[in-house]
Amino acid sequence: MTSVAIKTINRAEPETIAGLAEHGVSTVHEAQGRFGLLHPYMRPIYPGARIAGSAVTVLAHPGDNWMLHVAIELCQPGDILLVGLSSDNSDGMFGDLLATSAQTRGVLGLVIDAGVRDVRDLTEMGFPVWSKAISAKGTVKATPGSVNVPVVCAGCLVNPGDVVVADDDGVCIVPRETADDALKKSTARTDKEADTRTRLANGEMGLDVYGMREKLRAAGLRYEE
Amino acid sequence: MTSVAIKTINRAEPETIAGLAEHGVSTVHEAQGRFGLLHPYMRPIYPGARIAGSAVTVLAHPGDNWMLHVAIELCQPGDILLVGLSSDNSDGMFGDLLATSAQTRGVLGLVIDAGVRDVRDLTEMGFPVWSKAISAKGTVKATPGSVNVPVVCAGCLVNPGDVVVADDDGVCIVPRETADDALKKSTARTDKEADTRTRLANGEMGLDVYGMREKLRAAGLRYEE
Amino acid sequence: MTSVAIKTINRAEPETIAGLAEHGVSTVHEAQGRFGLLHPYMRPIYPGARIAGSAVTVLAHPGDNWMLHVAIELCQPGDILLVGLSSDNSDGMFGDLLATSAQTRGVLGLVIDAGVRDVRDLTEMGFPVWSKAISAKGTVKATPGSVNVPVVCAGCLVNPGDVVVADDDGVCIVPRETADDALKKSTARTDKEADTRTRLANGEMGLDVYGMREKLRAAGLRYEE
Amino acid sequence: MTSVAIKTINRAEPETIAGLAEHGVSTVHEAQGRFGLLHPYMRPIYPGARIAGSAVTVLAHPGDNWMLHVAIELCQPGDILLVGLSSDNSDGMFGDLLATSAQTRGVLGLVIDAGVRDVRDLTEMGFPVWSKAISAKGTVKATPGSVNVPVVCAGCLVNPGDVVVADDDGVCIVPRETADDALKKSTARTDKEADTRTRLANGEMGLDVYGMREKLRAAGLRYEE
Amino acid sequence: MTSVAIKTINRAEPETIAGLAEHGVSTVHEAQGRFGLLHPYMRPIYPGARIAGSAVTVLAHPGDNWMLHVAIELCQPGDILLVGLSSDNSDGMFGDLLATSAQTRGVLGLVIDAGVRDVRDLTEMGFPVWSKAISAKGTVKATPGSVNVPVVCAGCLVNPGDVVVADDDGVCIVPRETADDALKKSTARTDKEADTRTRLANGEMGLDVYGMREKLRAAGLRYEE
Amino acid sequence: MTSVAIKTINRAEPETIAGLAEHGVSTVHEAQGRFGLLHPYMRPIYPGARIAGSAVTVLAHPGDNWMLHVAIELCQPGDILLVGLSSDNSDGMFGDLLATSAQTRGVLGLVIDAGVRDVRDLTEMGFPVWSKAISAKGTVKATPGSVNVPVVCAGCLVNPGDVVVADDDGVCIVPRETADDALKKSTARTDKEADTRTRLANGEMGLDVYGMREKLRAAGLRYEE
Repeated sequence: MTSVAIKTINRAEPETIAGLAEHGVSTVHEAQGRFGLLHPYMRPIYPGARIAGSAVTVLAHPGDNWMLHVAIELCQPGDILLVGLSSDNSDGMFGDLLATSAQTRGVLGLVIDAGVRDVRDLTEMGFPVWSKAISAKGTVKATPGSVNVPVVCAGCLVNPGDVVVADDDGVCIVPRETADDALKKSTARTDKEADTRTRLANGEMGLDVYGMREKLRAAGLRYEE
Repeated sequence: MTSVAIKTINRAEPETIAGLAEHGVSTVHEAQGRFGLLHPYMRPIYPGARIAGSAVTVLAHPGDNWMLHVAIELCQPGDILLVGLSSDNSDGMFGDLLATSAQTRGVLGLVIDAGVRDVRDLTEMGFPVWSKAISAKGTVKATPGSVNVPVVCAGCLVNPGDVVVADDDGVCIVPRETADDALKKSTARTDKEADTRTRLANGEMGLDVYGMREKLRAAGLRYEE
Repeated sequence: MTSVAIKTINRAEPETIAGLAEHGVSTVHEAQGRFGLLHPYMRPIYPGARIAGSAVTVLAHPGDNWMLHVAIELCQPGDILLVGLSSDNSDGMFGDLLATSAQTRGVLGLVIDAGVRDVRDLTEMGFPVWSKAISAKGTVKATPGSVNVPVVCAGCLVNPGDVVVADDDGVCIVPRETADDALKKSTARTDKEADTRTRLANGEMGLDVYGMREKLRAAGLRYEE
Repeated sequence: MTSVAIKTINRAEPETIAGLAEHGVSTVHEAQGRFGLLHPYMRPIYPGARIAGSAVTVLAHPGDNWMLHVAIELCQPGDILLVGLSSDNSDGMFGDLLATSAQTRGVLGLVIDAGVRDVRDLTEMGFPVWSKAISAKGTVKATPGSVNVPVVCAGCLVNPGDVVVADDDGVCIVPRETADDALKKSTARTDKEADTRTRLANGEMGLDVYGMREKLRAAGLRYEE
Repeated sequence: MTSVAIKTINRAEPETIAGLAEHGVSTVHEAQGRFGLLHPYMRPIYPGARIAGSAVTVLAHPGDNWMLHVAIELCQPGDILLVGLSSDNSDGMFGDLLATSAQTRGVLGLVIDAGVRDVRDLTEMGFPVWSKAISAKGTVKATPGSVNVPVVCAGCLVNPGDVVVADDDGVCIVPRETADDALKKSTARTDKEADTRTRLANGEMGLDVYGMREKLRAAGLRYEE
Repeated sequence: MTSVAIKTINRAEPETIAGLAEHGVSTVHEAQGRFGLLHPYMRPIYPGARIAGSAVTVLAHPGDNWMLHVAIELCQPGDILLVGLSSDNSDGMFGDLLATSAQTRGVLGLVIDAGVRDVRDLTEMGFPVWSKAISAKGTVKATPGSVNVPVVCAGCLVNPGDVVVADDDGVCIVPRETADDALKKSTARTDKEADTRTRLANGEMGLDVYGMREKLRAAGLRYEE
């Protein structure tokens, strides 16, 4: 496998990305047809963060964080580092020094299919990370990987420049080419849900709001005392 | 498997349920003879909640939350939705809209052997959930299940109307028929523990408080310098 | 296997232990050559605790916490209880009563390759625990184990008197004999990192700070537009 | 929890049980409406066994096989020992001695939500076991459980006398009361499948045999070159 | 997500595919630079099968095998069905009827990131399957997916027409465009290994055959008595 | 961590080792007091092998099999390679070339807390391996570890020269110093079990053979019709 770092990638429009961040993972994931979600083992190191940004992708080897240094230099403000691994690993491949460097480039956060450490420092710095594990296990710098190539991260294909949306519900990938469309559909969904929420809050049953009673009867549900 | 929704269930007395909530999962679980505990993978989405209520049980299919809408209509104030699945699944079967609807019925919380989403919203609403996973993965409404039938949830059999006790230690099921007895035993245990706690806090050794020294010697323990 | 409780163990110097606590798990683990780390499934029950202390080791059997009572009596202020199991188990072997007793002896915290319960109480008491699980499942007092013998805990060998360092990144074991050396190396590492952090915060690239550019080229990395 | 051993249970008819064994797990599970299947982590210790029998249920504690001795005495020829645990455990609770004793009673096999050992001997004896793990870890005889009470095994409720069907595909539980009905439906399913198999073996497409083309079009599938 | 079935895909040359099959997973994986390997949880249902073929890819939903019927019609002799899922699932989505149909089309085997059933029948038919689980859990035909689109399967991106190599060591994906190159490199590697094997079988040490002694010394290894 | 290879280790007597092999894992593990068992995730790559030998221990880094070459040179006929890892990993660190080399030294088999590959070749060669995973994922030779130092493997401490006993039930470690004693106790146990087996095979109940009836009554078990 050749080791390559692509310097230039295309990104979605800033307003599109900002809009997707506002809607959050669950809405965006639904709006784009229920795909693009990373495995649920990807959890944030602290609650409350909700970000979206352009993926600078990294293909790294287990226990080797060399390419993260390469990737940070290629980041622009608003980017999110997204790291896929060549095989399963939970070592702590990212800590407060890399985060310090990443913040100077305007990187918003990290999504990594491996481990992270210095989580107390990262929390104080306000640098959110979604990872598979928290581990102090250090890493070497021995085998070069690649930057800004397509990677598989936590079960999902990510292309460089795809929009990464991440919050307490997990991480969702929106392909760059369909980001505008995903935003439109997310907005429509949020609007519709606002209306539904009001009706439900007023005590209407979901069975009526969604018109499910007849379908359930047809599907064989019967009520008993 | 026939799809059925039982409208009427028997519940334990409100004072019994309130008393069990006060004692909490660990005490109640011990008091009723160390059974009724759900697998420890069931974790709360936020710390600090401690509730008890009558189980409105749901048997659902993986990736299908249809029956949750049916179940909410059959809930009364003080109930807890408890969802077992027909096979392993971690999709996000419950979110803020269903929670909004459940709160209007007075439902206290959710216990689900699958995933949940919109966890930030649920935390702000104060609607506690104990689940196997947090996942934004959406669900369909295709295959009817049942409501208020016996279900297996996270390794434990639950009958409709059983008392669900849930807090930071996990989830414990108290059969409705023995709920009064469990409360009595829990109260006795709490009283006894208060006394023990005072003695331990005063520096007495557990070895003396519990009279273990002789038993340990008999079991073969020897001390060495 | 004979059941034995060793009363007297050697401990590292208090200043050494205090210094290691200050550096924290990730730094100490790196400084001593990247070993001594427990499996990353060992997680704290609440965030923010950072402690170091002398290991009073316990070899216990699954679902049996008898030896914890024996161990507490043998603790001195500044010790940490460290429990290895004879086979996999997630039962809640430690709760608020044992913690009350341990605190009267000056025990700083618990590291257990099994479950813990009463986590809300433990959090309020400020008694930190790193465990494999949270579970209300109660335990018996039937089979004696040993205290202050070498144990394997979460994949790592621990001798009585070894220094246990634990924080949000996990748990690291420092052999007592090399604790002074580990502190020296940790201090050197922290000093060096402070300098690196300043340079990175000023916008220098890690590629330059660590002199990686030539090595990456030699390893085959090529840049593309 | 009281410890009790129920001596007399009701069993399904021998011909019904024999018929269910012939159809096997996948067919029976489908025929009775896709329920009753144990978690797929339950695997046979050797391939090729296919049995069905009446469940003599055992509720045991982790690392304690006392009740298995009690249960064997209550078995009749054609029975299957089915063991649920009070909490997660993988210790080897059953080996060649217990199997020797069980075979003298005519027990056909074992289903256990824990570990098993002496698997080479068991294979040579032709005593099939479906378990969660293979482990040499020995067990104690300390805490009594119960025999012939309802138990949860690998996520499924089992009542004493229910029919256990087990083969290379896993383990399926058929409630005793509906065993005749399940056999009828299984036979119907097998007959229909034989016809379908012939058509498919002749090269007809499933899309035509099952009449799926129109439904797929309606569901939105479009073909492209 | 639109549901689409692409009828025509490009395939690698038959001789290339046959050559890759002969070399097997470990050699091909190494030869193409250590990528393309599916997660090791993908295991064959019986030992000894070694196949290679062109991937007809399927994107399916958990518990729904509808698209497998669509895919089989689009297969040619020498193809391998490769199924990715939209979220985690272990249900038995493929059994002997689908295998019968697939064999009439000349399909060589199945790779599925979910469960399979009827494994005894499949073994007798000589239809090999690599899967995440064996489970009798049946599936519905409710939500259409896609055929011959890029899918992620067990952590690896697969494009339709890529070469799937599978044997007892697991499953490796070779991109169609680089299949010839991978075969050349595999052949070179096999030739070189044959020579190495002879030298090692004659008792030469790997340390000498690979010229490692100096490198190990430089890396800091020291020998002691 | 210094990298060191200890050339000379002490081994148990050949007759002791041969005797332990004959008794097998379950008996030896019981006889020495139920300790020394590796986690049950360690499984043989093929059934039927039963070996015992002196541990040549290896401490390796994830994805790096350099030290295996060093270790093989230090092996004598009758040794078993036993590999612990510095952090979790499932890569295929051992294959047919290393096995060829190991067999020329008289090595009996491999126990590795990581992955193995070329399992079909290893099976044909009759070189048994107990591992955590089967994976074709190749490894680098970059970071030196150590040979013949104490290692933790699958949860158990192993010293160089300890006796490794491995069969279908798993892997058990017998400390070299107590190997003779373990053999004596194993022989006694086997003799006693032979007698028990005869009695059980003749239809006596375990409840009588082991004299359990009174103890069960005392523990609270009651029989019901």
